[in-house]
Amino acid sequence: MRSISIDTNTLLTRHADVGIVGAGLAGLMAARELAAAGVSVCVLEARDRVGGRTWTRPTSDGTLLDVGGQWIGPTQQRMNRLVAELGIETFKTWDIGENVQYRGGERHTYSGAIPTTDPLVAGDVMEALLTLNMMAMRVPLETPWTASDAAVWDSQTFATWIDANVSAPGARTLLELAIQAVFSAEPRDLSLLHVLFYIRSAGGLMDLLGVTGGAQETRFITGAQTVANRLADALGDRVVLGARVHTIIQDDAGAQIISDTLVLSCARVIVALPPTLAGRLHYRPALPGLRDQLTQRMPMGTVYKVQCIYPKPFWRDAALTGQASSDTGAVRITFDNSPSDGSRGVLLGFVEGDEGRVFGQRSPQERRAAVLECFVRYFGAQAGQPLDYVEQSWAEEEYTRGCYAGYMPPGVWTMYGAALRAPIGRIHWAGTETATHWNGYMDGAVQSGERVAAEILAALEIHPTSRV
Amino acid sequence: MRSISIDTNTLLTRHADVGIVGAGLAGLMAARELAAAGVSVCVLEARDRVGGRTWTRPTSDGTLLDVGGQWIGPTQQRMNRLVAELGIETFKTWDIGENVQYRGGERHTYSGAIPTTDPLVAGDVMEALLTLNMMAMRVPLETPWTASDAAVWDSQTFATWIDANVSAPGARTLLELAIQAVFSAEPRDLSLLHVLFYIRSAGGLMDLLGVTGGAQETRFITGAQTVANRLADALGDRVVLGARVHTIIQDDAGAQIISDTLVLSCARVIVALPPTLAGRLHYRPALPGLRDQLTQRMPMGTVYKVQCIYPKPFWRDAALTGQASSDTGAVRITFDNSPSDGSRGVLLGFVEGDEGRVFGQRSPQERRAAVLECFVRYFGAQAGQPLDYVEQSWAEEEYTRGCYAGYMPPGVWTMYGAALRAPIGRIHWAGTETATHWNGYMDGAVQSGERVAAEILAALEIHPTSRV
Repeated sequence: MRSISIDTNTLLTRHADVGIVGAGLAGLMAARELAAAGVSVCVLEARDRVGGRTWTRPTSDGTLLDVGGQWIGPTQQRMNRLVAELGIETFKTWDIGENVQYRGGERHTYSGAIPTTDPLVAGDVMEALLTLNMMAMRVPLETPWTASDAAVWDSQTFATWIDANVSAPGARTLLELAIQAVFSAEPRDLSLLHVLFYIRSAGGLMDLLGVTGGAQETRFITGAQTVANRLADALGDRVVLGARVHTIIQDDAGAQIISDTLVLSCARVIVALPPTLAGRLHYRPALPGLRDQLTQRMPMGTVYKVQCIYPKPFWRDAALTGQASSDTGAVRITFDNSPSDGSRGVLLGFVEGDEGRVFGQRSPQERRAAVLECFVRYFGAQAGQPLDYVEQSWAEEEYTRGCYAGYMPPGVWTMYGAALRAPIGRIHWAGTETATHWNGYMDGAVQSGERVAAEILAALEIHPTSRV
Repeated sequence: MRSISIDTNTLLTRHADVGIVGAGLAGLMAARELAAAGVSVCVLEARDRVGGRTWTRPTSDGTLLDVGGQWIGPTQQRMNRLVAELGIETFKTWDIGENVQYRGGERHTYSGAIPTTDPLVAGDVMEALLTLNMMAMRVPLETPWTASDAAVWDSQTFATWIDANVSAPGARTLLELAIQAVFSAEPRDLSLLHVLFYIRSAGGLMDLLGVTGGAQETRFITGAQTVANRLADALGDRVVLGARVHTIIQDDAGAQIISDTLVLSCARVIVALPPTLAGRLHYRPALPGLRDQLTQRMPMGTVYKVQCIYPKPFWRDAALTGQASSDTGAVRITFDNSPSDGSRGVLLGFVEGDEGRVFGQRSPQERRAAVLECFVRYFGAQAGQPLDYVEQSWAEEEYTRGCYAGYMPPGVWTMYGAALRAPIGRIHWAGTETATHWNGYMDGAVQSGERVAAEILAALEIHPTSRV
């Protein structure tokens, strides 16, 4: 064994009242709220960009594509308010025309929310949705595990619930599709209680699933990352990119956040990461077992977001919305994702849950071909000749490790729910997974940032007067 | 911002053919096999001891207590062979007399494996055990997700199976107790497929649950950690303690394992940690999404192991085995854990699953009182006056984060099982969670060490002649 000096490890040091890990919407909103109250903040971000699960990238021809989260809905009050405050321009998702349904090898078109080629199936689905909505309204958002039926609901998967409550195979398929679309996971992965919590958190199932009137209603002209970019711009050098945090130390005197490039000393820490990633940091002292075991139990969903760019949105000429739902192939959900001016056509598809998990085993060529095969099946031969094909796998992203969000398998809410937001000493937890309203969405991230900022202002005994 | 040099970070560097992360039984066995084949190895261990989930500690009066894994059973051929080779002395767990059953506020004693105060309950339990054993025999150990009913079995929790298949409340309670005792988790936490895999992996349910003839049959006179200690002794300075690994780098030229105290360069890496902890390391390049997401989905069980030391094993005078099962209180399973010479009496209790999760919220005084209350209820007033009380929470252990093992919630075997053992470039995966026989036990750890050593010998094109 020889001893050599491999690195003179000169790290920058910096001080702030509050150090924030992660410059997604949650971390940036917390920074904004705290800065507005006169608290000094510093946000450390591992990537060379802000925005977390929102990420807007130009294609080769300059078309802006959201490869991450991209929509907001009318009941997402925090996002709507924030977007208005920041003066960010939005537009409505293209939703004019008929939708495509592909089932059992056949293609149909239909209007409205639920495919109606088989009225019996539609009836079964409607009944299931109404039942789930009613059950969901009995889940307390702050403490889902205190619902009167929580023990029963958290002991079973959503697959078990479908099995026991939905008989028509076509209706089962549609419900599975809905779960995949909302969670990028399978019905068997999810606790029934978590599904019900999530429904209530959004207001109802149609709020989650809908375009006009729902969570997919509104887009950003310059892309969804614009929100994070604007927040970061206002924070200026309080946001430090390329600083991968690996260690958080706290003691009676304060806290230190140690990244590859910078050591931040502070009085309070906000970890604004998905729980599974928060669990990968090194804490001194080590975290309590309950908190640590929570982070072992909230896996991220699995999705490839795939997009094809065309000279124009040709499906609009055929009076189609660009929305398809399918029981076959890699892509089972599509949307019209063209830029607001219609200067290009963009078809967006999601490869979710099990399909997303196996998709990465194929070669890039095979993946592209599989996506085009689906798009052609839903929208005709023109869909087979895109100008460009863009895919984004969030499970591969080292600093996200899955989308859309972390979810609860059976039993986790019941035994670990109380550890989700509870601060540990100087450390506070943010991120959309900690939200009570629109959990898993941008709006939930904003709520979590506001909540954690309020927690810290209370802890620091600062009473903001200019903002509520 | 100021720039200062905070550390001249002088790390030792070292080279070996194979670097091993973790000096539990899996890592040490791999090192032993490789060293025997002439391959140079170095094992990095974060703790100041070897043995992982086996840990033998003396009490204030010198009595040796296993605060971790401690038993081996007659069909654990690898452990039995290893123990014989190392010349380690064993003895039989005290199993003479009657067992105590505490149900519905009443205490009974009984003989045999299944409490028989209610023959209808005993019949229901026997039928459930036989059914589960039969189902388990249809689970291929290498690829559980290829079982013909895998899709159904991996879509439901074990709680759902009990609900649908066991009607007598008393029988349900016993099955729940069995699950808690085997997995330190609740029936709702576990995929039915995982429970069946685990049963087959051990040979059958009675192999898992039994004392004489089962997994709790045999103990080590000097404690179970003796096995790891002997392996480490033979490896000498190839085992480095106090070296917390945080980063693994690999490229065409080789690999580097970076710990707080030492940088190891090597050709191959073995990560011999539970999957959830393996997922917390920093990998360059980043691991594929499927492997990463697996590590998000295999949480560790939750258990406090509690032990009371008495002047003598007084329950033996009352013709009791020291084994109790109960439906009430923090401790629901007990054993006689006295030293082989009976020089002291030791009652061992497990606080498992949900009970283990909430136990840490109580004060140390409350925990001790809760344990004594149970022991007195099962074994009389003498149990209330121990010489010493010792508890060990494995969820609090930073370098384990739960016991007895990592387990699979619904859906994980199906979509992520293939990633459990598949090497990623130069990195190979060991640990009892990767075992096909006696998964979760010391024997599984040994199997995994042997398997991974064979993988690497094949990769290095070394053909051992002296050992098979």
